[in-house]
Formats: sequence, C-alpha cells, structure tokens
Amino acid sequence: MCSEYLPPRGMRDITGVEAELYEYLFSEFRRVARSRGFQPVITPTVEYFKLFEVKSGEEVKKSMYVFEDKAGRLLALRPEVTASIVRVYLRLLRAQPKPVKLYYLAQCFRYEEPQYARYREFWQGGLEVIGDPDVNADLGAAVTASEFLESIGVKHFYLVGNVALYRNVMRSFNIDEEAQDHILHLIDKEKVDEAVEEVKSRGGDIAAEVTSKLLSAESVDSVESYLQDLKSYLGDLYEKTLQEHMRVIEFTSALRELGYRVVYSPRLVRGLAYYTGLIFEYKTAGGELEVSIGGGGRYDGLTTVYSGPFEYATGLALGIDRIALVLSSNFQLREARSVSVLVLRDVPISVGYKVLRLIPSNFKGFVYRVNSLSKGLKYANRVGCDFAVIIGSVEYKQGKVVVKNMKTGEQVLVDINALPSLLNSSSGSS
Amino acid sequence: MCSEYLPPRGMRDITGVEAELYEYLFSEFRRVARSRGFQPVITPTVEYFKLFEVKSGEEVKKSMYVFEDKAGRLLALRPEVTASIVRVYLRLLRAQPKPVKLYYLAQCFRYEEPQYARYREFWQGGLEVIGDPDVNADLGAAVTASEFLESIGVKHFYLVGNVALYRNVMRSFNIDEEAQDHILHLIDKEKVDEAVEEVKSRGGDIAAEVTSKLLSAESVDSVESYLQDLKSYLGDLYEKTLQEHMRVIEFTSALRELGYRVVYSPRLVRGLAYYTGLIFEYKTAGGELEVSIGGGGRYDGLTTVYSGPFEYATGLALGIDRIALVLSSNFQLREARSVSVLVLRDVPISVGYKVLRLIPSNFKGFVYRVNSLSKGLKYANRVGCDFAVIIGSVEYKQGKVVVKNMKTGEQVLVDINALPSLLNSSSGSS
Repeated sequence: MCSEYLPPRGMRDITGVEAELYEYLFSEFRRVARSRGFQPVITPTVEYFKLFEVKSGEEVKKSMYVFEDKAGRLLALRPEVTASIVRVYLRLLRAQPKPVKLYYLAQCFRYEEPQYARYREFWQGGLEVIGDPDVNADLGAAVTASEFLESIGVKHFYLVGNVALYRNVMRSFNIDEEAQDHILHLIDKEKVDEAVEEVKSRGGDIAAEVTSKLLSAESVDSVESYLQDLKSYLGDLYEKTLQEHMRVIEFTSALRELGYRVVYSPRLVRGLAYYTGLIFEYKTAGGELEVSIGGGGRYDGLTTVYSGPFEYATGLALGIDRIALVLSSNFQLREARSVSVLVLRDVPISVGYKVLRLIPSNFKGFVYRVNSLSKGLKYANRVGCDFAVIIGSVEYKQGKVVVKNMKTGEQVLVDINALPSLLNSSSGSS
Repeated sequence: MCSEYLPPRGMRDITGVEAELYEYLFSEFRRVARSRGFQPVITPTVEYFKLFEVKSGEEVKKSMYVFEDKAGRLLALRPEVTASIVRVYLRLLRAQPKPVKLYYLAQCFRYEEPQYARYREFWQGGLEVIGDPDVNADLGAAVTASEFLESIGVKHFYLVGNVALYRNVMRSFNIDEEAQDHILHLIDKEKVDEAVEEVKSRGGDIAAEVTSKLLSAESVDSVESYLQDLKSYLGDLYEKTLQEHMRVIEFTSALRELGYRVVYSPRLVRGLAYYTGLIFEYKTAGGELEVSIGGGGRYDGLTTVYSGPFEYATGLALGIDRIALVLSSNFQLREARSVSVLVLRDVPISVGYKVLRLIPSNFKGFVYRVNSLSKGLKYANRVGCDFAVIIGSVEYKQGKVVVKNMKTGEQVLVDINALPSLLNSSSGSS
C-alpha cells in the first residue's frame, strides 16, 4: 500500500485491544464524572481561531492547525477544550444553579514534532466547575479525576503550584500581562534563569530576587512566611495573593487527609496562559517512570476575556492517550461469553437471525453462514466463541439446533425454545 | 458576547438533555455493535486529502474541508469513515480471521449550506464487514443496526436498491467508471432525466432505454424477468449482475422474514461513489415524516483502490444527529438518585469527601460547602438531589451526619457508618 494511504504524520489508527482500552477509558471517565454530578458537553472539533488566539499560551498558539474555510473564515482544530467550555457557559448555561459542573471527552490537535506518547491528535477527558470561588470546586474536580484514575487502576500523586504568586509579584512591579504570560511560559519550558532575567529587565532587581526566591521554595509553609515579607511590595495585591495561597494550602491538606501524596512544586506553571492561581498536575506513581497524565487549575475570570461577566472557574484535563499507554501492558477486557450461530447453506438465513434473537443478552452472538460444518466450527474457534449453535437442514426441519460447547467439545441437540435456558444454565461454568 | 465567540457556522454546542441523549446513543450503539461481534476502531479525524479524493463521490468531494498543514501536506476533515476503515484493514487487520467486523463512532464534516438537521459537523455510527461475499455479511450489519434502533425505540423501515444493475449495464455499453459515477450522482440528486440523457449520449439509445426501464422497476421481481432480456447485452457481466440481484432478493426476503418492512427503491444510489451492488437506507416510520437516518451497501473491491488486494466488503453508517432529533421530543434520562453532601464552613472539607466515599455507588453524589445550611439545602433542591447529608461542627465532633430526604422533608441523625445502609434501604422508595 502506498504511503499516501497512511494516517497523517503524528496521528494514529487505533484498533484491537488498544481501541477496546480507549472505549473502556471513555466509558469509565463518563461514569465517574456523571456520578459526581458533572454534565456532558459536546463542542465543535473545529472552532474559530479567535477563540484560542486570546489566552491559549505561546506554545499552544504556535502549534495550532489553522486554516480558512471556503468562505474565508479562519478556523482552527481545537488544541484544548476549556475555551469552548467558557463559550458554552456564557451562551447557554448562565441560568443554571452555580456551580455549573461540566465534563467532556474530546480529541484535540497540536502540530508538534511527533514523539513517544505525543501525538498530533490526542484525547482529553476534562472536568470544569464554573461559578464557585471555594476550594471545594477545585477539590471536587480533582477528587473526581482521582476516583476515575483509581477505578481504572492508575496509581498517581499530585504536583501543586500557584501561578498567582508570580503574576501578582510581577503585576506589583508593573510587568504587563503579556510579559507575564511569556515569563510563565519560560518557567514552563524549564528556562528558569531566562525567566528571572526577563523579570529583572522589566521589573527590576527586587522583582527578580523575589521571583527567584518563590521559584525555589521548598514547601507551602516556607512560601507563607515569605509572603509576609512581601506585603509592602504587593500592596493591594497582598490579600488576594494570600487568599490564593490559602487555597493551595487547603487543597493540599485536604488531598493529604484523603490519602493522596501531594508535592509542592513552585515551578509548575503548565502551558496554558489562562491559569490564575492554584495549579496542579497528575503524575503516575509506582511505575518505573513518573509520567504526567494531566492537570488543571484555577482560571478565574477567563469569562471576561470572552466578553462575559466575571466568573470564578476551575478545571482539569486528563490525557487519555498517556493513561492508555500506562495501562496498555496489563489491560485485559472482561469479555461477555460468545455464541456463533452457524447456519448451513441449505437453511434460510433468516432462521439464523431468529435464533440469534433467542440468545440471552449477556452473551455476545452473531450469525455465520457456511457450506460445511467444519469450516464453521473452525471459524467459531478462531474468533474465540464459547458456544456454537449449529443449524443444518435436518435440525431446521425438526425445530431444533445443536449446541456445541467449544471448550469442552460436548454437544447436545435441543429444541430451539430450550436454547436460552441451556445457555443460561451453562453461564457459570467458564 | 461578541459573535466571534459563537461555534463556527453550521456547528453546534451540545449541552444538557441533548448531550445526555448523544452519550446515551453512543453507549447503546457501542453496546449493540459489541454484542454482535463488531470491534471498535478509532481513526484520525483528519486524513490526507488523497484518501478521500479517489472514491468519495462528487457531492462529498465538493463539500470537504481541505487545508494544508505547516509542512504543506494536503489534509481534509473526514467527510466519512469507510475510506479510513479500508486503510486500517489493509495496514493492520489482514491477518485476522475473516470476516473482519468493525465499528466506529466518529464526527464527520461537510461544508454545505446549514439547514434543519444538517450540520457541518455531524456524528456517524458505522458498521463494516470485510472479507465476506455472502449476503449474511450485509444482513449481519443491517440487523445489528436495526437492533440498535430498536433498543433506543426508533421505528424504521428499509429502502433497498442495487447499483450493480446500472454499473453493469453502463459498463456493457462502454461507459467508463468516471462517467458512471457522475450518472449515479445525477440519479442520487433526483435528476433522473438528466442521467438517462447522459447514458444516451455516452452509451446510445438502447443503453438509455434499459437504464430508464430499470429505474422505474416497481418490484424486485420485475427486475428479474427484465434481466433475462438483457442477457445478450450484458454478456460476461450477466452472471455477476444476476448474482448481485439475488443478493438483493435474499437480503430483502430475510429482512421481511424477520418482520422488517422493505421497499424496493430502484432510484436509491446514495451519495458515495464506492458502492458496487446492494444498497440500502433506513427511514424512520410511524412519525409524521419519513426521515432518512442512515444507510449502506456493498463496496466490494474498494481495497484495490487503495492498492490492496481485492476484498469483499459491506457496511453502513447511521446519522446520530438525525436519530437524536427523532428521539429528542421524548427522551428521558434514567438518572441515578443523588445525594449532596453539605459541609458547613467550620468543618474540614476533607470530611465531606470521606463521607462521599461512603455513598453507595448506585447513587450520584458530590460535596458542597456552605456558610449556611439553608443555602446548602436550597442548592440541593435546585439541582434535584434526593438526599442531603448535612455535616455541621456539632455532628462532625460526634462522628454523625444528618440525612434529609429532600422529597419528604424527613430528617434523621445517624452515625457516619450507618449512612450506606440508610441510603440503600431507602433506595426503593422513590
């Protein structure tokens, strides 16, 4: 097959057990999100570029798939879903009782160099809580994500940071928001020295010193005492900064109370420019490698960027592809037992489908028409069927079928109507 | 909110009950497809334009979203999924026992004038069977789709046609494949006179007369006797044409045996150029309007178009958006009963999440932190909770909670550990 007929570079065909695993993750994510009161939202895969232009962050903006439609509208394949969620909230959900709790499962796209476990099309499962200033909103989303990870058997721990510290320090030294975004982007890229240099050139020596000190804080508590010293610089921003810091403390201690490991991580900023305070990341634990499998944080006021009124908001997204990769080595689908209905060529095919209707719903079943019984049994065997129900012309005329247990080889001739009870009674045996 | 922050023209934000309905349809489609032995496949949302260029049909090709990536590769948002499925089969699944049975659930995109129930982004649920020449392959897919429609309560009937009749007649009068595609496209657009005119100019008077007669056949049987007359024109193609005709007869009669209404529809050709024989469509029945909700047919040999060996193949796709629209008026989600855990401000928030863990898994539940009990109860009421579990500082110190039945107003103080059994015992009451 010629290479024009490959998936686009960095994208994939997902089949077999891997596809089963994805569907299992989708359905578990939905189940857990719903069980915690989150509602589904489905947004367009393609959005106007404008939607992402404002607050996605440098990294994301650079790597978007952007194109014009036939009418010259500038569109983009979504690089993430939170911007769409904010739009949905503002357009359609403002009348709902707050907090509004939403979830989504969606492909996103980034034009980056493909590498191990990094695809140009990838799946995100997200939880968003809009309209609640309380740390309970952050916890509600975070714990729901943890419950999902637990339900699928992914051991994990938390990294926690606070971008409000840097934003407010920079703001108090008159560094504008765009420059803040860039500096945070540098920290995200682990270019910490460059970031501090940039703070220095724009905000002066003290700004740089403070930033540098916050970046190397070893614990949440050490930040707290340091914030006291900064009171005079922060001025009006002090109260807000302290509040956000208290959120981080409360978030951390509640998670620890619930048995989760939480590591304070002052250099955590994440690649999206819309975060305003608490920020966190999920890492796998217990395996050979600590892999980041998702994260989130506060994005208070992102609604105003989209011309809406100010709303408190928080949320997170999990990387389904990374999670699938972590699980892939020991994923075993719990399959329903299966029956193949083998119809011999001289029997009307519709008879096979009538028999199929009698197969109990806890069985998987399908009809296969064959010229010879041996070919049919071979097929039933290759596709791993537990039972073959055989309908030849003799059985058909008598209103009977032969039921063969493919594991034991045992076979019995039964009246068609006795088939359901026969299969049900043998259900427990395998 | 400014109009830049709307979904792109012709696309939608799906929320609330409608989003619940979509998720319900997704999960039912998956359940039924799996129960009949179909395996999931997830293919890229974006493909190389080449993949669709060959055999999508005029209509589809005109309305594709086509664009270049940053490296100048010509990409397209998928207008349909069968081409990708054929690629997947050729690349990855040729070693599996045949028939290979696959299903997908995927957004597709067409740049058409938006109109009622026609969106530029729409969802398809598809079933494909590769490697089986038998009509059982067609029936297996068709009946599975019917079972899905029955499981969600959509009454439907079948239109059945046969494009092999037209293709083989045209071929025998030396009309090339491209012209055939165009003529079938005209029939699809209900421009039957124009189509016959085109056959005439390319194949002569007799070709036109034959085509015209086939196009107005009133039943499958009338076609059969007519085919006899055509034997001399069809020559070598006669046997193949008759065979495909027999498939249509067997397909139709088996479906009728199984209780489905089937209407022979000689002008049914569908808008995709890859169909080779049997073709069918699902229409809703019993409502005010007969709406087309999907269809499919034989696409034997499409594998060769993608440089693979010849394979028999058949499949279908259902339009999830249309089905959602048909169901939307009377969809009622069966919701799990729900509990809101109301934590008063002077109690550690982690206590709420510990209590949440005790809520039986058949309940929906979440934590809400409030300054006053009345505010909490008002919220629990607005979001439709069945129970509120109240934790104030007095209860907390005693290791107890107050459980309030939101429907009856009844409330009891119980030990935290008694909560699961209390909720379970009241499960049946509402």
